[in-house]
Amino acid sequence: MPLQRIMNAESVAVVGASRTETKRGFQAIRTLLDEKFEGKIYAVNPKEKSVLGFPCYARVSDIDDPVDIVLITTPAKTLPAVLKDCGEKGVAGAVIIAGGFRELGKSGNDLENALLTAAQKYHVRFIGPNTSGMINVKTSLNLVGLDHVPKGDIALISQSGNMALTLITEAKVKSRKGFSYYVGVGNESDIHFHEYLAFFKNDPETKAVLMYVEGMREGRQFLQEAYKTTLLKPIILLKSGRSSVGQRSAGSHTGALAGISEVALTAFQRAGIITVDKSDELFPVAETLSNQPVIKNNRVAILADGGGHATIAADILTDRLGVDIPELDEKTKEKLKNLLPFTASVLNPVDVAGGTDADPSLFAECARILLKDSNVGGLLMVGLFGGYGIRFAESLKWKEEDAAHQLGKLVLTSGKPIVVHSLYSSIKPHALELLRYYKIPVYDSLDIACRCMGVLSIRGRYLGEYHAKVNFVFNWRAREKPEARQIIDTAKAQGRRSLLEPEAKRIFKLHGAPVSDDPIATTADEAVKIFKKLNCDVALKIVSPDILHKSDAGGVRLHLTTEEEVRRAFKDILKSGHIYAPKADIRGIMVSPMAELGLEIIIGTKIDDQFGPVIMFGMGGVMVEILKDVAFRVLPISSHSARKMINEIRSAPILNGFRGRPPYDKKAIQRLLTLCSEIVEAYPDIEEMDLNPVIVYENGTRIVDARIILKEDGDSNSF
Amino acid sequence: MPLQRIMNAESVAVVGASRTETKRGFQAIRTLLDEKFEGKIYAVNPKEKSVLGFPCYARVSDIDDPVDIVLITTPAKTLPAVLKDCGEKGVAGAVIIAGGFRELGKSGNDLENALLTAAQKYHVRFIGPNTSGMINVKTSLNLVGLDHVPKGDIALISQSGNMALTLITEAKVKSRKGFSYYVGVGNESDIHFHEYLAFFKNDPETKAVLMYVEGMREGRQFLQEAYKTTLLKPIILLKSGRSSVGQRSAGSHTGALAGISEVALTAFQRAGIITVDKSDELFPVAETLSNQPVIKNNRVAILADGGGHATIAADILTDRLGVDIPELDEKTKEKLKNLLPFTASVLNPVDVAGGTDADPSLFAECARILLKDSNVGGLLMVGLFGGYGIRFAESLKWKEEDAAHQLGKLVLTSGKPIVVHSLYSSIKPHALELLRYYKIPVYDSLDIACRCMGVLSIRGRYLGEYHAKVNFVFNWRAREKPEARQIIDTAKAQGRRSLLEPEAKRIFKLHGAPVSDDPIATTADEAVKIFKKLNCDVALKIVSPDILHKSDAGGVRLHLTTEEEVRRAFKDILKSGHIYAPKADIRGIMVSPMAELGLEIIIGTKIDDQFGPVIMFGMGGVMVEILKDVAFRVLPISSHSARKMINEIRSAPILNGFRGRPPYDKKAIQRLLTLCSEIVEAYPDIEEMDLNPVIVYENGTRIVDARIILKEDGDSNSF
Repeated sequence: MPLQRIMNAESVAVVGASRTETKRGFQAIRTLLDEKFEGKIYAVNPKEKSVLGFPCYARVSDIDDPVDIVLITTPAKTLPAVLKDCGEKGVAGAVIIAGGFRELGKSGNDLENALLTAAQKYHVRFIGPNTSGMINVKTSLNLVGLDHVPKGDIALISQSGNMALTLITEAKVKSRKGFSYYVGVGNESDIHFHEYLAFFKNDPETKAVLMYVEGMREGRQFLQEAYKTTLLKPIILLKSGRSSVGQRSAGSHTGALAGISEVALTAFQRAGIITVDKSDELFPVAETLSNQPVIKNNRVAILADGGGHATIAADILTDRLGVDIPELDEKTKEKLKNLLPFTASVLNPVDVAGGTDADPSLFAECARILLKDSNVGGLLMVGLFGGYGIRFAESLKWKEEDAAHQLGKLVLTSGKPIVVHSLYSSIKPHALELLRYYKIPVYDSLDIACRCMGVLSIRGRYLGEYHAKVNFVFNWRAREKPEARQIIDTAKAQGRRSLLEPEAKRIFKLHGAPVSDDPIATTADEAVKIFKKLNCDVALKIVSPDILHKSDAGGVRLHLTTEEEVRRAFKDILKSGHIYAPKADIRGIMVSPMAELGLEIIIGTKIDDQFGPVIMFGMGGVMVEILKDVAFRVLPISSHSARKMINEIRSAPILNGFRGRPPYDKKAIQRLLTLCSEIVEAYPDIEEMDLNPVIVYENGTRIVDARIILKEDGDSNSF
Repeated sequence: MPLQRIMNAESVAVVGASRTETKRGFQAIRTLLDEKFEGKIYAVNPKEKSVLGFPCYARVSDIDDPVDIVLITTPAKTLPAVLKDCGEKGVAGAVIIAGGFRELGKSGNDLENALLTAAQKYHVRFIGPNTSGMINVKTSLNLVGLDHVPKGDIALISQSGNMALTLITEAKVKSRKGFSYYVGVGNESDIHFHEYLAFFKNDPETKAVLMYVEGMREGRQFLQEAYKTTLLKPIILLKSGRSSVGQRSAGSHTGALAGISEVALTAFQRAGIITVDKSDELFPVAETLSNQPVIKNNRVAILADGGGHATIAADILTDRLGVDIPELDEKTKEKLKNLLPFTASVLNPVDVAGGTDADPSLFAECARILLKDSNVGGLLMVGLFGGYGIRFAESLKWKEEDAAHQLGKLVLTSGKPIVVHSLYSSIKPHALELLRYYKIPVYDSLDIACRCMGVLSIRGRYLGEYHAKVNFVFNWRAREKPEARQIIDTAKAQGRRSLLEPEAKRIFKLHGAPVSDDPIATTADEAVKIFKKLNCDVALKIVSPDILHKSDAGGVRLHLTTEEEVRRAFKDILKSGHIYAPKADIRGIMVSPMAELGLEIIIGTKIDDQFGPVIMFGMGGVMVEILKDVAFRVLPISSHSARKMINEIRSAPILNGFRGRPPYDKKAIQRLLTLCSEIVEAYPDIEEMDLNPVIVYENGTRIVDARIILKEDGDSNSF
């Protein structure tokens, strides 16, 4: 493991060690002492003799014993020299605190590239720059200067120091959980998200990975690593910077990339990551997933001591989170009836209706009955539990504590999760602290408690699914066709970035796509001859590298049915073309058979900032242009993934046949999507493809128009 | 004010006063004593001599002095006799705690009706039954048995005792705010939501009304009252029971009606109510709206001490809440630059980038600069404020407290609101308590803090809008047409609930709707004669009170172009009709001109459980059937409201002209919607109307099919 020596460093040197209390170089050593770091500490500062009792070395290379990691608190300009020194000493890694790099724009960008070059030259990996640091909580290797981080099994990776502080504070105040590690990725210049993830995947003490992300440098590799990780442990992730203002904000503090939010979200989901869109829910969800068993059947029982909470929870779980609240077994109902007053509701939600007022330990009894029901995959308790001793009579506290012990053990014996909402949560009565001791999450927010149940169900479904081997990394050029390669190379040689329609269609044809290989006429007679041979209605379209928007140039004529029409259209198109672009190189006019009527769809591919090539699918016309009803996927995609993508758009039911129409050929769309994936993979030169429209029939599809844009010369594909 | 004497009662009698400490009849008196109720207390129990020092009366009427309100803690079966006694004594109102009524179904329903009849007979208004009670916090008239309710300016109306307890606990733990009154409406049997609202509208000490609602009996009157109230003070409302499971749950504890959620939400919005869909946000939003000035220009500045919080807040405000985060004035940027380090971002969000680490009082300086900018309508501070003394150095506490004083006054001087997110909120450092003293809301949830800003903007927009006089109450039969009345009466006399298509169309025609008054042929010759006279393509449709689904019965033939086709269609329809329903009373076959091609829309009306007649509008076909893209309104609607409704559906841009098409006639749709409103108002007999489809053209519309269903005989219209 490349990060092993960095993350579990046994010796640390603080470069920029200082005697001034407000300086990071002082605080860092102070914290390591206060937190009782188990390894060795060295102070480095040529201008000081000692700091906090540690003798100061002038340079890292002056230290005799080995140094695993260096915390650099000195300014940006000193960094190349320090890294060189570290490299010579054989230091494994550095944490670079200084800001003023990519987040400041162009000038900072150059500075950051220089930093990276130096680090690579001297073989020193580094965290940051512009980071709050890292903490190994187990060994108290605390390079952040934040004390009393609670120890636990959640690894935290954050692109914002303040969000890390928020999550750590939340853990302390609202739970009994803690962290195994914290890494502030900062500008993610050298060590990337996926490398940290690979380390945490293998760390035996980490049970869940909690991430706050604004933008990623190596999205595709991250997805690949995440896909492997989530089969073993949950990843919980909040991606911010969705809005343009959010992107502006992210850019101005870590220089994060923008990317397409829909792409990121579906890609994360496909890799099995639990995405959260509310920062409130981030820690509770991680707490829940790191310890509670998952829900295997998407079915939850709600146990309440009053109607309001039950009704709200039922709304959230069913309406917003898609969890079932099934009716209970007759047997279960019978048992509950025997236990509770006649006014109680033993449907699901179960409302004890005052039945626990005199003895809240009945909650444990009800929970036991409910979790025995095979319809019930998990239990959500909502209401006052934990507060009976406060609200009614102090003596009820003991009953509640008894119930808490029983509930805690019930999770183990039943193998089903319990999550508790209590309006007394923040008052921290002992019964609720007991639940937390048993690792049952307790929240005073119904929304958050429900969300925790919801993710246990999502995770249960994911782990229960068949996992096709997902590949997020391209096998570039593997299925390249020599003729297609030549078309692309020719275009590039001619300085063109856009392929001509016949060229694009030819490439699709070569890969077996349903597209006609349309001839090009250079004279009206030739056009008529082709028309006669085709013996059907035709369309004429201008072919010119100088005319990209054919319709705007009057370069398209459709539904031509007679020789006369074809002849006239040919002349009109030529004329319009010359008027539109007098110097245009017009290669001829393409004569295509008119496509039969069917359903219009659109397929496109482009390059996302963070994830590289992505594909888009949607219904043509109103659905895409007005309702923005499209689905995205990171390429390459499997046939399985293509099928899910097709069914994901809101208007997908149209494909199944509507108002008595027979269904359209979804399999053919699926084939076309995977074929697009194959083409993008075969030619790394492609920047964008646009199939608009494709017509879908009961049997098969037909590409009516195809556009391929190549990358700018010199654009390398880093994905 | 009818409720004045009840809500501000100066004397209370507890019926069922008890010496047993666990009984409500004991606790009620105990609480009144503990809380130091300012009025007179009487104990009523024929079997006791005294309770807690109060002599017991056998009956309420035995009390010599006047009694304003009675708390009845005795079981359901005693109630009629108690109410009779109260009536004779001249008691103004009662609070009925007992459950076992409508929430248990049919038998309970009868019991509840009997209760209501008794109360009306003896002129005693009552709260409940099945309620936790009511509290006048000002006078300590506490009939709930919940102590230490914080005093303040929010009136709380709740249909769940536990939700009330949640909100009151939240106020205590997370804010320095409190309540003027609490009312548990219970089953809302006698005193209805709108009556409480009318009382709070006029109560000088109530600045905001906070409501938790599962279902309403008199939705329409509530809307009317709410519309008047929201021009004076904000109403914040959470409506639960959206999902079918939630409705089951609500029904099982207060017997709440289901209703259509979309209808409720748009109706509430139209009445100026702030609806909240997360119970977490309910109290914070009420806290914010009761004291902070509103945002007048929908523009907010974010002030942060780190990128993560700023980015998340920007996402939530812009993407989810539709608030603008504008760029700042050059002057503002200049001033901020002078104050902050060079790494700070002075775009909006403003990131101080460590600039406040040594002196957090700079936050007040930044806030002052930002609120002076005319682009900025309100300020959201996010991050660590309040925790600098905890995180960095204790001495920074004084600086933070200084800033808090300044920020508090800044709201008053600028007239613009400030909301604060602090991750230290729940630790309650003094600086944050100071902010709360100045009534600035402070939350540790970014989502909630943003939501508070969002509602200040919604409320600002609402108060700034033109308010057409909205009428939620019908002027029944005002525009009735005698001929239409006769059509309806005839159908009823014949025992029909469904009007024939020609009858329904005739009614629309009488009200001036764009519909053809189609003749009915009883022979093929007659049909051909009509066809020749019309001189265009026609449609033939069967007319029979016994055949509602004409297409299913083979009773419809479209696009008939020749005499021969008309003749054959006539015979085929008759034959199919007889096969489909051998005993059907076939009145003839309607001959209609085929409508020209245009855009299909659908208009329908029905009766909602809670709000009475409502109208629905949507695009025909896929948009309604697959995408469920429809808008609802409670009737009657104004022309203004109809216009907003049309523009509300997602597919509305189609009407504006799409891909170069000229726009469709939206004014004509608007007229048709208000005309439907008029018809429903004119004939209280109508249960449902269905115009499907209506064709819209560039000029005008045409109703192609119309259906009207009448109410079951004896159905009274209570709306």
